[in-house]
Amino acid sequence: QTNALRTNATLEAACAWGNTPDGGMNRLASNDDDKRVRDWFIAETSKFGCHHKIDAMGNIFAIRPGQNNALAPIGLGSHLDTQPTGGKYDGILGVISAMEVLQTIHENKITTYAPLAVINWTNEEGARFPPAMLCSGVWGGAFTTEYGHSRTDPEGLTLKEELERIGYLGETECSFEKNPLTAHFEVHIEQGPVLDQAEEAAAVVKGVQSIRWYNVGLVGREAHTGTTPMNRRSDALLGAAKMIVETNRFVTEGEVAARGGRATIAVINSSPQSINTIAGHVDFGLDIRAPADSDVELIEAMCRKRFAEICDEIGLEMTFDNFWVSPAVNFDPTMIECVRSSAREIGCTTELVSGAGHDSVYTNKKVPTAMIFVRCRDGISHNPAEYTRPEDCAAGAQVLLGAYLRYDDY
Amino acid sequence: QTNALRTNATLEAACAWGNTPDGGMNRLASNDDDKRVRDWFIAETSKFGCHHKIDAMGNIFAIRPGQNNALAPIGLGSHLDTQPTGGKYDGILGVISAMEVLQTIHENKITTYAPLAVINWTNEEGARFPPAMLCSGVWGGAFTTEYGHSRTDPEGLTLKEELERIGYLGETECSFEKNPLTAHFEVHIEQGPVLDQAEEAAAVVKGVQSIRWYNVGLVGREAHTGTTPMNRRSDALLGAAKMIVETNRFVTEGEVAARGGRATIAVINSSPQSINTIAGHVDFGLDIRAPADSDVELIEAMCRKRFAEICDEIGLEMTFDNFWVSPAVNFDPTMIECVRSSAREIGCTTELVSGAGHDSVYTNKKVPTAMIFVRCRDGISHNPAEYTRPEDCAAGAQVLLGAYLRYDDY
Ligand SMILES: NC(=O)NCCC(=O)O
Ligand SMILES: NC(=O)NCCC(=O)O
Repeated sequence: QTNALRTNATLEAACAWGNTPDGGMNRLASNDDDKRVRDWFIAETSKFGCHHKIDAMGNIFAIRPGQNNALAPIGLGSHLDTQPTGGKYDGILGVISAMEVLQTIHENKITTYAPLAVINWTNEEGARFPPAMLCSGVWGGAFTTEYGHSRTDPEGLTLKEELERIGYLGETECSFEKNPLTAHFEVHIEQGPVLDQAEEAAAVVKGVQSIRWYNVGLVGREAHTGTTPMNRRSDALLGAAKMIVETNRFVTEGEVAARGGRATIAVINSSPQSINTIAGHVDFGLDIRAPADSDVELIEAMCRKRFAEICDEIGLEMTFDNFWVSPAVNFDPTMIECVRSSAREIGCTTELVSGAGHDSVYTNKKVPTAMIFVRCRDGISHNPAEYTRPEDCAAGAQVLLGAYLRYDDY
Repeated sequence: QTNALRTNATLEAACAWGNTPDGGMNRLASNDDDKRVRDWFIAETSKFGCHHKIDAMGNIFAIRPGQNNALAPIGLGSHLDTQPTGGKYDGILGVISAMEVLQTIHENKITTYAPLAVINWTNEEGARFPPAMLCSGVWGGAFTTEYGHSRTDPEGLTLKEELERIGYLGETECSFEKNPLTAHFEVHIEQGPVLDQAEEAAAVVKGVQSIRWYNVGLVGREAHTGTTPMNRRSDALLGAAKMIVETNRFVTEGEVAARGGRATIAVINSSPQSINTIAGHVDFGLDIRAPADSDVELIEAMCRKRFAEICDEIGLEMTFDNFWVSPAVNFDPTMIECVRSSAREIGCTTELVSGAGHDSVYTNKKVPTAMIFVRCRDGISHNPAEYTRPEDCAAGAQVLLGAYLRYDDY
């Protein structure tokens, strides 16, 4: 049995750094607050018989030995970084649930069959260093360490130099091959409305939908807003605006919309940022998702075609860079079964596919993986109002314990 | 006779600070390069019998005495600040033409009837400290000195502290009443295509069209791009995009468009700048212009109505702040006549209304004012490609001399 009160107390402790006045969190990967929570994570897990490996991407593995230490550990992981307008549950609850399992096992003096690794993956959000799940991605072989190291934040700082600065550029090589696991379980808040509507505390996650990210760059011509006739302009911001409206239309009307396609533009920058000079340069980020890879490809094709037409119409040059592809994922049937039977024990039967990407997407490339979702209020996430009830947080840890022990017994 | 070679040499000298690799200028008001060009302006005009007054907004009056020094000087002015993607002519040519007139009069040992003031107005562009023509506006009584001082740049620095820092927060009160002129002439590049198409070097400017500037703020709700269904979003950037597209439609279709209405959104900022968090806050600047005040009001009303509908549709809160109103201006008939007869001497007969605002808009509130436009290639301005032929630059100075001497004789 996990301890519900303790789970919530640990969660609160993990939110001591990077909290914002509106009750949310702003703990971008590899900033000073991320360093502080990492130091705390290492100190806490040390109390329960763990030694630590830190890898070249700053991923932290807190390892508690088992009976067979020649076996790779079973990993229970998630992330402690947040969005700039993040909540206190996204990622954090997963690490805390894993810590609760660790602590429960430790206080019950259980020696597990395989070693146990509680894992904090670096930069899951991708908010500071796109793409998301970058460092589980390096571990899972989706990216090279060089690629991960070279990713930059909007200020131009690289992840490598920032990890070095906070003292978390570790010596362990970041790869499944050099630092293997046997399996990976992850608890996460759902971040969507399904469990809230189903009135269940937790769910089995069978997989993750398809995701692609793009940087789109537009070049028009700077010109005077007052003297340049409307029909002699190459207005890059007008072009971007048309693209945003059209992209939204593609996923709110018609077939792709019916099949659950989503597309969002959230980051935009225009230059030269002068109210009386027509924008000559605009860049924006595009996020496309759908349950099926083919629908993401379809939305991409619709955007490429329509964006090119808009560029022709207005007289813009475009770069369209698809810098991240995360295909749809199905988790391991055995692992899913472990989660399913553990969830049933507390009366939860919902099964769903994740709309968000998670570190488990990349561990799944190498080892059997499954996830547990926990209900969150109104499905709100990436927002300070993100909220999960204490009993639901505790339920997540409890389902994780059951699933983990089932797999360890295996 | 002004000296064509000298006019162009002075112009080049004035562009020694703040030039960019692409051949343009980036000399934002009150930055280090603005200080350097001001120092140069004072040193140069000192050579031709001028003493200087610097006022509380940093406007510089280089005054050469005349026969009747109880009379207020006749001002010949424009500005030395530029856009971030500016050219070498916008504003600069006006100051340089005035310097050429000063020098011509000085070398010919002419004592004018009234004193002559060559004027550099601060922050005409409004690119760093909106609104435009801020400091001629304070002088002309459109704004208080406190208002001018308190305007901030995107970094939050005030114009007052920046003027103090560069040593140009002067002691003279900034007002027509405390530091009067008798009249104001201004040479400026047209920044539009009329003269280029008419194949004339210079034109009489009869007035300036109506301008209003706005800051629009939108508040939606931050949410996860991957998990939030399309119909449960309050996407502030989608709202802004729809507003940009609609605003453009208002001035490219229908009656207002036919009457020359223009509207532009060039500056936009979205937050929290994370590719997988729907933008919860977006701000943008709106620039509306038309020859008639009533059309600017009409476009404003169309925007207010449609923006409110878009907000209702998407679930956004809006602030709509009209922070600058510059009504249409007609210049003084006598001054226009002086320009007209001077322009005729070099064979130029074009007369037009300015699409851009100029310092003369605000001097016109207090003293007889008129302007001379000089042809610029393809009407391109606020762009490094802005270009005016040396002969046309010289023509501007020549027409200014003729107009000025006519008025001084008066
Ligand atoms: N869980 C989560 O918010 N992950 C970020 C990756 C994504 O954008 O889906
Ligand atoms: N001439 C010029 O570019 N002035 C700036 C004011 C305006 O935006 O019209």
